[in-house]
Amino acid sequence: MKKINVTVWNEFLHERQNEKIAKVYPEGIHGAIRQMLSDDENLAIHTATLDMPEHGLSDEVLNSTDVLLWWGHMAHQSVSEEIAEKVKQRVLDGMGLIVLHSGHLSKPFVKLMGTCCRSKWRENDEKERIWVIEPAHPIAHGLPEFIDLEQEETYGERFEIPTPDELVFISWFTGGEVFRSGCCYKRGLGKIFYFRPGHEEYPTFYRKDIAQVLKNAIYWARPSGGPVPTLGHYPALENVPDKYAGRSDHERKHMNIGK
Amino acid sequence: MKKINVTVWNEFLHERQNEKIAKVYPEGIHGAIRQMLSDDENLAIHTATLDMPEHGLSDEVLNSTDVLLWWGHMAHQSVSEEIAEKVKQRVLDGMGLIVLHSGHLSKPFVKLMGTCCRSKWRENDEKERIWVIEPAHPIAHGLPEFIDLEQEETYGERFEIPTPDELVFISWFTGGEVFRSGCCYKRGLGKIFYFRPGHEEYPTFYRKDIAQVLKNAIYWARPSGGPVPTLGHYPALENVPDKYAGRSDHERKHMNIGK
Amino acid sequence: MKKINVTVWNEFLHERQNEKIAKVYPEGIHGAIRQMLSDDENLAIHTATLDMPEHGLSDEVLNSTDVLLWWGHMAHQSVSEEIAEKVKQRVLDGMGLIVLHSGHLSKPFVKLMGTCCRSKWRENDEKERIWVIEPAHPIAHGLPEFIDLEQEETYGERFEIPTPDELVFISWFTGGEVFRSGCCYKRGLGKIFYFRPGHEEYPTFYRKDIAQVLKNAIYWARPSGGPVPTLGHYPALENVPDKYAGRSDHERKHMNIGK
Amino acid sequence: MKKINVTVWNEFLHERQNEKIAKVYPEGIHGAIRQMLSDDENLAIHTATLDMPEHGLSDEVLNSTDVLLWWGHMAHQSVSEEIAEKVKQRVLDGMGLIVLHSGHLSKPFVKLMGTCCRSKWRENDEKERIWVIEPAHPIAHGLPEFIDLEQEETYGERFEIPTPDELVFISWFTGGEVFRSGCCYKRGLGKIFYFRPGHEEYPTFYRKDIAQVLKNAIYWARPSGGPVPTLGHYPALENVPDKYAGRSDHERKHMNIGK
Repeated sequence: MKKINVTVWNEFLHERQNEKIAKVYPEGIHGAIRQMLSDDENLAIHTATLDMPEHGLSDEVLNSTDVLLWWGHMAHQSVSEEIAEKVKQRVLDGMGLIVLHSGHLSKPFVKLMGTCCRSKWRENDEKERIWVIEPAHPIAHGLPEFIDLEQEETYGERFEIPTPDELVFISWFTGGEVFRSGCCYKRGLGKIFYFRPGHEEYPTFYRKDIAQVLKNAIYWARPSGGPVPTLGHYPALENVPDKYAGRSDHERKHMNIGK
Repeated sequence: MKKINVTVWNEFLHERQNEKIAKVYPEGIHGAIRQMLSDDENLAIHTATLDMPEHGLSDEVLNSTDVLLWWGHMAHQSVSEEIAEKVKQRVLDGMGLIVLHSGHLSKPFVKLMGTCCRSKWRENDEKERIWVIEPAHPIAHGLPEFIDLEQEETYGERFEIPTPDELVFISWFTGGEVFRSGCCYKRGLGKIFYFRPGHEEYPTFYRKDIAQVLKNAIYWARPSGGPVPTLGHYPALENVPDKYAGRSDHERKHMNIGK
Repeated sequence: MKKINVTVWNEFLHERQNEKIAKVYPEGIHGAIRQMLSDDENLAIHTATLDMPEHGLSDEVLNSTDVLLWWGHMAHQSVSEEIAEKVKQRVLDGMGLIVLHSGHLSKPFVKLMGTCCRSKWRENDEKERIWVIEPAHPIAHGLPEFIDLEQEETYGERFEIPTPDELVFISWFTGGEVFRSGCCYKRGLGKIFYFRPGHEEYPTFYRKDIAQVLKNAIYWARPSGGPVPTLGHYPALENVPDKYAGRSDHERKHMNIGK
Repeated sequence: MKKINVTVWNEFLHERQNEKIAKVYPEGIHGAIRQMLSDDENLAIHTATLDMPEHGLSDEVLNSTDVLLWWGHMAHQSVSEEIAEKVKQRVLDGMGLIVLHSGHLSKPFVKLMGTCCRSKWRENDEKERIWVIEPAHPIAHGLPEFIDLEQEETYGERFEIPTPDELVFISWFTGGEVFRSGCCYKRGLGKIFYFRPGHEEYPTFYRKDIAQVLKNAIYWARPSGGPVPTLGHYPALENVPDKYAGRSDHERKHMNIGK
C-alpha cells in the first residue's frame, strides 16, 4: 500500500504561552498527534504550524498532502486569507481534511461549510460521553459503543453547520448539552471530518480510542481516486443538431461557446 | 395568513443588451417572474436589479424580505462583495433563497455552498425533461410527474455542489446529460432552493408549471418561525460544580468565559 | 383551507389496566392528544383504539385519514398483520404517519423502516431535555431552543433506525444517554415523523410545547399533493426504434412488455 | 489483509431456459461475476443459486459471508420467506449486500427498504449512460466520469426507494428517462449498495468498468468492525437515583426492567 501523506497543522500558541498547557502538551498538540499516529506504518506524518513561512502550508506541502488535520483556537484570524483559500481549494481538489475541536471556527472549515459554524461552549471540566450513532461507518471501526472523556470543554447545540452527510458521533455533557461530534462531509472531490474533542487543557490526544478515531478518519478521508469531472462548456455526446453549426470560430468565441 | 414578502432579483442586462432576448422578456426576467406569481394573493412581490443603488438590496429591503429569488448570469462579478455577504448573512438569519438557473455561480450561492458550483453546459436548443424524484416533497405539489421544456440550455453533471439535503428534481437532456435540477438546503436558519431552468433566450418564465414550482418553493423556503439558538458562552443548565466559582469578574473576563 | 383529517390511534391498555396510569390519562392517551389538538380549527380529529373492529382502522377510515398518529407499547403483537400492512401501504400511498414514543417498535413503523428499531431504555424518572437541532425545519415552528421534561422514560442510542432524512431533535437524559428524538422520513408518497417522548406514566401529552410539536408535525406530514408516478412498463417518450415493433399483441403479452 | 468472503447469489433461471441468454452467460450470471472478480486476490468468491438447498444460503454460508451480491428477476416469489428474512437479519447484523439490477424487487431488498421499490421499465435495447455524481465516494474509485452501455434495459424514475444515504450514480437513457443507479444505504450494522445495470440479455457483466464498480462496492460494503450496540434495558451510567431501588428481583422481573 502506498503511504498516506498526513500533515498535522497546529496553531501552537497555547502550548508556548501557558505553562499549564505546556505541561500537558510539551511537544505541542501536533507533536502529540504525530506520536499517537506513529505506530501505523501506512501513514507518513508531517507537521506544520502557524509561525512557519506560509504557515507551513506551501503549495508543495499542500499538493503532496493526502489528509490534513487542523487544530486552531485563539488565532484563527492570524491565518492568511491566501493560505485559507488554498486549503479550501485543495480540499475541493481531493485532499482530505480533519478538523479538530475549536477548528470549527477556522477559516478553511467556515469557508467550506458556508455557515457560521458557531455553537454554545463552556470551559467547566465536565464529562463528555461520545456515543457512536453509526456503527456501520468506517470511522467507527474498532471503537466501543461510547467513549468517556472525564474532563473536556463543553460544546452545545445548536451547532450551526450544514446537515452532515453522515453523522457518526453525538456527545452528551454533564451540564445538559448534546453535540453532533463526528460529522462527515463530501465537498468537491474532497472529504471532511469534524471531530469535537481536543481542548488544549486536557490530555485527550494521548488516548488510544481517540487515536483510533483519527486513524479511521484518515483512511476514510484520503482521496478516493475517482474521476476528475469535466467542467465548463461541453459538446453533446449524442447525435443532436448543432445550433451553432456553420458559425466561424470567431463568432463561436464571441458567443463564448468553446469549440 | 400574513403575506409572504418576496423579492425577485435580476441582473437585467441580457434583456437590455440583446434584441432577441428583449423580445422574449420585454419587462425583464424579473418582470416575467413577478407576473407569473401575481395571481397568488398571499405573496407581496417586489423586484430589484443590479443597476439600482445597493443593487436594490438595502438593509431595509433585505430585512423585510421573506424569500429572495435570484437570477444572474453574465455579471456575477459586478455584484459587490458587501451585498453578497449581506445576502448570505440574511439567509443564515432565516430568509429563504431561491436560486435560478445560472445563479448557481452567483456570489451568494457560492458563498453559502462552500464549493465551486460549476457544471457542464451547452447552449444548443436541446430538450430538457425535468423528472420529479421526490413526489412527497411540498415543492412537488400540483406538478405532473415530469415537465418537458422543448428548448433550454443544457447543464450536465458533475454539478459541484454539496449533496442536497433533499433532491426533488433530476433533468434529462437530449444530448446525453443528467442534472440535479431541484436541490434543497438548510443553512443556518434559512432555506435554499436551487432550480435549474430559466435560460434568458427561452420563454421558460411564462409557463404555468414553472410558476407552480416557484410558488411551491416560496412557501417551502419562507422562514419557519423556529427558535433562534443561543450561540457563544453558555452556563450549565444542570447543577454541576462551577470550575470558575470564586473568580472575580475581572479574572473571568480575562479568561473569556462570560459571566 | 380544507381541514386535515387526523386519526389518533392508541393501544389504550395501560390506561385501563393500571390505576396509576388511569389517573394520568383518564380519557386515554388518545383522548389527551385529541384534546391538545382541539384548539386548531384546521384539524378534524378522530380516534381509534386496538379493541375496535379492525382496530378502528377500516379501509374507510384509513382512506380518509390525512395524518395518522400512533401510540402503542405493550401489545404491538396484537395488531393484526393485515391492518399493519394496510397502514404501511396507505403511508406509501401518501398518508402522513406520526409515531410516538414506544411506537418505534410498532408493526407499521418497523415495516416501513426495514430495521429492528430497537434502542436502550430505562424507566427511572430521569429528566429529558429535547434540543432543537434544525431550527429552520417547519416542525421547529414556535418552539424554544430546548424543551425540558422533568420526568420521562429514558431511551438511548444506538437507535437502530435508517439515517433520518431530516433530524430535528436530539434528547439529553440525566443518566448519560442521547437520542435522536425527532426523525423525519419520506417513504413512497408519504411522510413519517418519529417523536420520542410520551411514556404512559407522565403527563407529557398535556404540555403546550408538545402540542406545538404535534401540530407542526401534522402540517408537515399531510399529503403533499404531488404527482402519482407511473410504475411498471412504460413506453419511450422520445422517438427511439421499438425493439418489439411488428410483434403481435399475443407475443407482446407473452413477453410481458405491455402494449 | 484478511480475505473478504464474497457470495454471489443468482436466480439462474433465464440462462437455462432461454437459448439466447444462455449464449450470453453460458456459466450463468453468477459465473460471469465470479470470473470478473477473480483477479482480485483479496476476494474469496463463492456462488449460490435458487435451486440449491436453502437457495445455497445456509446459516453457515450466510454467517461466513462478508458481502453478498444478489441477482434475481423472474422468480423473486420463489425465494422462501425464511431465507429472505435471514438475509435481511444478516445485513442488519453487519453483512454487506450488493443488489444488482432487477434485484430491486427481491424480497431481501424490499424488506430492508420498507418501500415497494418499483420503477418504470422498458426492454428496448436503448443506451444507458451512467454518470458519476459523487466522485469523492470510494465506489467511484478508478472510474471515468461516465460509463456508456450501448444496450441495456431501461429503468426510469420515479424509483420508489427511500432517499439514498449517498447517491453515487445517475443514469441517462436514450428514450428519455433518468434513474438513480448507484444508491448507498446503511441499515443496522450493514451496508447496502444498489447498482442498476445488468439485464440478462446483455454482456454487461463482462465489462472492466462494471467489474471496477462491483469491486469498489465490495470493499465499501464489507463489515466495518464497529461496535455492536447494547439494545434493550440499560442501567444508568451516571450516578442517578434508582427509581426501583429496594424492589425485589421478583418485582423487577414483573415490571420487566431487567436487573
